[in-house]
Amino acid sequence: MDLAVYTHVPAEEMEAFLARYDAGTLVSAKGIAEGVENSNYLIDTSSHRFILTLYEKRVDVADLPFFLSLLDHLADKGLPVPRALRDRQGVQLQTVSGRPACLIEFLNGVSVTHPTPAQAHATGVALGRMHAALADFGGQRANALGPDGWVALAARCGDDLDAIAPGLKARVSEELAYLADNWPGELPHSVVHADLFPDNVLMLGDEVSGVIDFYFAAREVRAWDVAVTHAAWCFENDGTGFDQNRAAALIAGYDAAFGLSSAERAAFPALARGASLRFLLTRAWDWLNTPADALVTRKDPLAFLRRLDFYRDAVPGALGL
Amino acid sequence: MDLAVYTHVPAEEMEAFLARYDAGTLVSAKGIAEGVENSNYLIDTSSHRFILTLYEKRVDVADLPFFLSLLDHLADKGLPVPRALRDRQGVQLQTVSGRPACLIEFLNGVSVTHPTPAQAHATGVALGRMHAALADFGGQRANALGPDGWVALAARCGDDLDAIAPGLKARVSEELAYLADNWPGELPHSVVHADLFPDNVLMLGDEVSGVIDFYFAAREVRAWDVAVTHAAWCFENDGTGFDQNRAAALIAGYDAAFGLSSAERAAFPALARGASLRFLLTRAWDWLNTPADALVTRKDPLAFLRRLDFYRDAVPGALGL
Repeated sequence: MDLAVYTHVPAEEMEAFLARYDAGTLVSAKGIAEGVENSNYLIDTSSHRFILTLYEKRVDVADLPFFLSLLDHLADKGLPVPRALRDRQGVQLQTVSGRPACLIEFLNGVSVTHPTPAQAHATGVALGRMHAALADFGGQRANALGPDGWVALAARCGDDLDAIAPGLKARVSEELAYLADNWPGELPHSVVHADLFPDNVLMLGDEVSGVIDFYFAAREVRAWDVAVTHAAWCFENDGTGFDQNRAAALIAGYDAAFGLSSAERAAFPALARGASLRFLLTRAWDWLNTPADALVTRKDPLAFLRRLDFYRDAVPGALGL
Repeated sequence: MDLAVYTHVPAEEMEAFLARYDAGTLVSAKGIAEGVENSNYLIDTSSHRFILTLYEKRVDVADLPFFLSLLDHLADKGLPVPRALRDRQGVQLQTVSGRPACLIEFLNGVSVTHPTPAQAHATGVALGRMHAALADFGGQRANALGPDGWVALAARCGDDLDAIAPGLKARVSEELAYLADNWPGELPHSVVHADLFPDNVLMLGDEVSGVIDFYFAAREVRAWDVAVTHAAWCFENDGTGFDQNRAAALIAGYDAAFGLSSAERAAFPALARGASLRFLLTRAWDWLNTPADALVTRKDPLAFLRRLDFYRDAVPGALGL
């Protein structure tokens, strides 16, 4: 059986596709399971290794030029991000098996599951360097999963939130009201990664060898990206076990590479509550719309309710700032 | 979302696992989508490339020693098959993330979708060499998907066969009766691959660089393996478009490398009907037991009813023998 969510690309078509590039001849191609958003093949040629990505329906084709120019901008400044290659005619965005597709640089490294403080520090440094590199990036993409998006997503989930956990709808409403009053929208904005979980950071030992998966990148309060990363890196998966050493290392790395202002520090609890709410709501939506017996694992929304409660109750000094 | 059928192996556990071998340090690990039978990771270390396979519930752990010794036997004789490596203590079968697991040699090559006669010839040669190498292999595994298995599987499908296509149940019964009378069980037996579809042959140009996926290997009428390969390689996927040139090349390659006796040639139509029935029935069972909206693509059973009809009606001279 094949997974229906993936597009199968015949080897013969892959060979013809690779011939558009100065990229050697096909030696191996394996479909890789990187979530179910896109179809991805790990491709080896006689000279290089690549990822071939076919964009499936969850990525808006109209956003692809933004993502490609963002990756070019970061790669040009020396950041370890997977740039899309250009064929001999200079074209990045191709069509393979009827889908929009790109041939993308392969980056070594593995995603850690239990980050050490040294790995969190390196990630903070990488995030800071990315923000520095993005200061002069002019690309525009609104953040569909920013404050306005949370209101809309909560409304779409509606009463069903209470089917996930009793009282969740009221808790979300309370949080939306808090953030409506306290969201620090006056802080500096930038294009941000917006999804820098350990899954999206490739590491070799304690070094960051790659930052990947920019498909949520958008313009937003810049320090929100730090808060998302904080929420993603400093807890157990289930939202318990906040690790203050890891958090302090992450923040110290970011501060050394880019800097976190006193205004951003003061707003950090609100930013982190917004980060937690974003993942709580998208996971709640997926939870409500994925059958329990589906072939995909539903991620527990409550793992981010626990983070939300933590950030609401924590004294700022405990956050590692 | 992660695919629920795969076991997620944390990078930290992979590093500890690799340390049992003389295999370098972890550089990259990607979950690869090779059906949904097992969890497979493509792993690069500082010195080698491997496949890490975790055996999920569809493989019987009791069969693994047979498969591992079969691959060792073939690899020792120079066949391009993916052998399981031994750790420093000589152990092949390990436990990773609670599942039985092996670290397996990586083989280059891609699976072709539209085989040329030259590629079919090379596959016939590879199959013949495999049969030659297996002449002195003593491993025992009964073929659960041989003639007795077809009767049992047809009974389990029962009246539901007619839900796939009107009259299918009667057609299957008629075929089972024919094979009960005409199955050439007196022909030489051997351990056979039993599933040598293009998916399971890795090629570089016109050369076979790997034969993979031995999880249906079992002792059976040896020439049935040739018939399975004939049915797998010489039609369009949907069972139309029999390609006599491809068939003749496949048979010529096998005959040159190992030899097909006159008795095997005479029995070939019955063997090919048995091959078609085997895949018709397993696909029918999967079809009846996979929801239409599942994340896996159901393979059409009727693609093998068409092959069955073809082999029933063809004059032997048309088969490329």
